Parts: sequence; structure tokens; C-alpha cells
Amino acid sequence: MKLQTRDVFETMRADLDLVDERVARFGAVDFPIVSELVADIVQAGGKRLRPMILLLAGRAFNGDIDRLVTAAAGVELLHIASLIHDDSIDRAAIRRGKPTLNSRLNSGAVILVGDYLFAQSAMLAAATNINRVVSIFASTLGDICDGQLREMFDAHRLDQKQADYERRIFGKTASLFAGSAEMGATIGEADAASVAAMRRFGENFGMAFQIMDDVLDLRESTLDLGKPSGNDLRQGTVTLPIMRFAAMLSPASPDFRLLENVISGERDAEADVDRLVTMIRDSGAIEESISEAERFVEIAKGCLTLVPDPTTRSMLREIADSALGRIP
Amino acid sequence: MKLQTRDVFETMRADLDLVDERVARFGAVDFPIVSELVADIVQAGGKRLRPMILLLAGRAFNGDIDRLVTAAAGVELLHIASLIHDDSIDRAAIRRGKPTLNSRLNSGAVILVGDYLFAQSAMLAAATNINRVVSIFASTLGDICDGQLREMFDAHRLDQKQADYERRIFGKTASLFAGSAEMGATIGEADAASVAAMRRFGENFGMAFQIMDDVLDLRESTLDLGKPSGNDLRQGTVTLPIMRFAAMLSPASPDFRLLENVISGERDAEADVDRLVTMIRDSGAIEESISEAERFVEIAKGCLTLVPDPTTRSMLREIADSALGRIP
Repeated sequence: MKLQTRDVFETMRADLDLVDERVARFGAVDFPIVSELVADIVQAGGKRLRPMILLLAGRAFNGDIDRLVTAAAGVELLHIASLIHDDSIDRAAIRRGKPTLNSRLNSGAVILVGDYLFAQSAMLAAATNINRVVSIFASTLGDICDGQLREMFDAHRLDQKQADYERRIFGKTASLFAGSAEMGATIGEADAASVAAMRRFGENFGMAFQIMDDVLDLRESTLDLGKPSGNDLRQGTVTLPIMRFAAMLSPASPDFRLLENVISGERDAEADVDRLVTMIRDSGAIEESISEAERFVEIAKGCLTLVPDPTTRSMLREIADSALGRIP
Repeated sequence: MKLQTRDVFETMRADLDLVDERVARFGAVDFPIVSELVADIVQAGGKRLRPMILLLAGRAFNGDIDRLVTAAAGVELLHIASLIHDDSIDRAAIRRGKPTLNSRLNSGAVILVGDYLFAQSAMLAAATNINRVVSIFASTLGDICDGQLREMFDAHRLDQKQADYERRIFGKTASLFAGSAEMGATIGEADAASVAAMRRFGENFGMAFQIMDDVLDLRESTLDLGKPSGNDLRQGTVTLPIMRFAAMLSPASPDFRLLENVISGERDAEADVDRLVTMIRDSGAIEESISEAERFVEIAKGCLTLVPDPTTRSMLREIADSALGRIP
């Protein structure tokens, strides 16, 4: 059994190399200054989780490998394009310890490079020659933008409900995992119930993934994160651990006032942010949030019963669990 | 014959109303502040030339009207999304005499609204359920971004060739007209030669359209344009009339130096720009550029011989001619 899993992993490695090669080819831009910067981002790469889930969701059924690789390169490029615009929106100068495009190109060029990569990712989706894949791709892009608009306009209230937070992170993060799994199963010609189950797998995995991202922002040191700790507080983005912490405070307390003032941007001293980070770490809000992430991981794993191949099923279970042990 | 043309025009009107309705529906955004601004842009609307060409290219053959309307709404939303990002890149505060999104929303929101409308336009392309239409859509978006990147990085040299200029305006403007005509003919199930001819029609029309846009920027008053006259000079964008004017000057002359300094941004006084505008108007460069536009219009009209229906053919001829008589 162990050998079998390793065999599948080796197969995945080869597929992921094909994906990387296609991402690099379609992500190439005709302007040296831009293409170097894009190549850097593509190579910095991260864990290729979205392509991996798409490939496995296809392999779980009956996926044509070339189509799977094409679609997997498409979701990775969509992810990269969305990171580029995201950095431009946040004006982030550092991501994964590297300077962002934003810190090295003027903002107009950053917008265009992101748009160009969106176009290239759409080309890849279209190249699968499966209409349903293109529809999933387009609606996923819509969901991502919706989530980001919600984050921009609605994320700064402390009185929001958990459902508001969940809707936001669904759009911003979980939708692309959901879409990746759905595309994979669709290319794999799975039956409708299995496609829906794979989509739910991706969605619930993505919810856990983003909650853990929000946890890491508060739990880990700046050094481990590769970006400043407590960034969400600084940007006024109310995440699950912040909501849970707020719920423990009396609205009349000085701590609640401090939190309100940091979220609204009225107070932005590093000492204030650091004090809040320490209080949140000591409050139990982090642990409560991790429990929520665990709940989503359990739901994700429960969606795998329809996966016929046991090896692929166990690989997807391993991926699901990895959301909880995320290393920044 | 005259009655027939009017009949077709009336039919077009009804189709364009359907397009408008679909654009408004898919362009709706869930945030009141954003949706009002988008609705303004959609309503300000311009002449719906891209949907019109797409609809006619479909009707010229055998186009299913619902699919044509869907694709036409898609190209119009793509155009609007691209204008929104364009304004953000130029930081333009006024377009068609109205404030741009850019002057009323923060730049991050503008990027997201543009992305959201790209997603919606891709949804519409996918909703035609024709793979070829989606591919044309995606490659057109790529061409547009390529043209805009070229404008950003390559448009500021006075020593460029006309071929560089043409490649740029193909991407920036003509590609979407080419794609619109190609999508229409594809939905109309035209044979390959006719689809290619319709694409060439759109492309050559688009080239004439953009040359005239560049002419108007210099020829018309600020009042007629609804934006400052000589804007291309101010932005350092070398257009065809500017190239033709430069070619008439001795590189050692003070006028050439003035032109160089304005294009590079070293001199930006309004009096300098105004002086150049006047010199260009008096030089004959405008007339030379218009001749180029006329040449493209003739090529466009020459592409219409394969259009079977004479009424649609004459309507497309009228549209082609309209590029030259453009009212800002």
C-alpha cells in the first residue's frame, strides 16, 4: 500500500512537471522586463495545490492526461494572475519573501500583466475543448472577484456574522479549489453526483485552507510568514480568529476599543498591533478557529466516498489533512 | 431597396436592445456604490459598434439570434472591462464627458470591478456553448493586453516604424472588432473562407477606426472630444499623425526637439502641447493619416464579397464608411 501511494506520487510529479512547463510557456510575455518578473513568480510557485487537486480529481475517474494538464496549467495561471492583481490592490511589496511585481513595475503595467495572464489562463481552459470546463472557469473567476470585492467593502465590520466571513473566503479562496476539483472530475467524465462531490471536496478543503491562512497571519512570527505578522489587523480585514476574539470582549472594554481603532485604521502604531496579536494568541480564538478548519477538513474527506480508486482517494485525504499542518 | 435597409435596421435595433438588456444584467454588481457606477458606464454606452458588427456578421449567414445576442453582450462587456482598466492605467478622470470609475473609486476597487466584468464577459462567451467562440474570445483578450503592453513600453519612441504602430493598434483596438466579426460568422456557421473574410473585415475596420481616433485627438477641440485635445502628446504616445509629422521635420530642428521633449515628458507646459497640436494640424500629417484610414476602409469593404445577403452586405459597407466620418 505504501509503495502504491509512492507510485502515484511519482506519477503526480511527472504530471506536475508537465503543468509547470505549460504554465511557463503560456505565462511568457514578449517584454523582457515583464517576462523576467513573471518567470520569477511562476518559479517561486508555491505548492501547486490547485493543479494537484485538479489532476487527482481527474485521475480518480477517467481523465485524459493532456486535457488535465492543460486545465491544471489554466487554474495555476488564473491563481497567479489573481495574486498579481491582489498584490496591486493591497500594494503589497513582499510575497513569499520576494518583492512583488507591484514593487518593481508601475501600477498600470501590473494591471495589464495580470489581465494578460487571465487571458492566457482562459486560452488554456478553452483548449480543453470542453464547454463545461470553460463555464466552470469563467464562473470561478466571477466568484473570486466577488469574494475580493466583499473583502474590500464588507470585511471591516466587527459586527459581521460568521456566514459573511465564510461567503467572503469562499469567493476569495475556496471557489478556485472547488472549480479545480470540478474541472478535473468533469474532464474525468465522472457522473454528475461524483462531479458535485469532488466540487464539495475542493470547496471544503479551500475553506479550511483559508481559515488556516488567517490563523497563521496571527500565530506565526514575521520571520516564518515571510510577511509581517498581524497583517490582517493592519489592513482592517476581520478574519475568523479576530471575530472570535472580539466576541469574547465586552464592547465597553478598552481592549475592544483598541481592536475597533486598529481595524478602522485610527490607530496604526506597531505596538498596538503587536499587543492585539499577543492578546488574540492568548485568548483561545486561534484554537477555536483551528477547530472550524478541522470541521471543514472532515467534511472534505467525507466527500471522497464516491472516488473509485483507493490510492487516489487516500492521496486526496492526505491533501485534505495538509490544510491543517500548513507551513507558512 | 431603401425600405429593405430600413427593415434590417429596425431588426438590428430590436437585437441591440436585447444586447443592452443582457449587458445590464451581467454587468450588475452586488455592491450599490459599484453597481451605480457600472450602470452609468453601460448606459453612457457609445455606439455599440462591436455588438452590431457581431450581430451583422452572424445574420449575414445563418446565426441563431439568441447565441448572437449572448456573444454580442460578451464583447460589449469585454470592451467595457477593458475601458475600465484602461482608465485606471491612464488615470484618466474623464471619458465621454463623464467622470471615470477611476476618479470615484479607489484603484483597487477599479481593478476588481474590471476583473469582475472580464469574468462576466467570459461567462457570456461560454454560454454560447461553442468552443470556437470561447477560443476567439480568449485570444482576443490576449491580443488586447499585448497591444496595451506595447503601448505602455514601446509607444514613446519617435523612431518607430509604421508597422510597430499598426501592430499596437491591432492589439489595442482592431483585435476586438476582428474577434467580434469572427465570432458572429462562426455562430452563423459560415464556411472557413467566409469566417476568415469577416475577421479581416473587422480587423481592417478596426485599424481605420483607431487611426481616426488618433486623428481626432489632434484635430478636434477639447470641447468636441469631451477630453483634452492633444492627449496622446501629453501621454507620450506616438500615433500615426505624430509619426508623419515627425518625418517631415529635420531631426536637428527646434520643432523636432520640442516634439521629442513633449513626448518624453521633459516639457509638459500646456502652451508647448498647444503649439505642437497647431503645427501638426497645419502640416498635412492629419490628411496623410486619414488617407491611411481610407485605405483600411477600402480593404474592409473588399472583404464583403462573400456575404450572401445583399442587405446585410450594404449595412456592413455603411458601418465601414462610418469609421471615416467619426463624430467624437
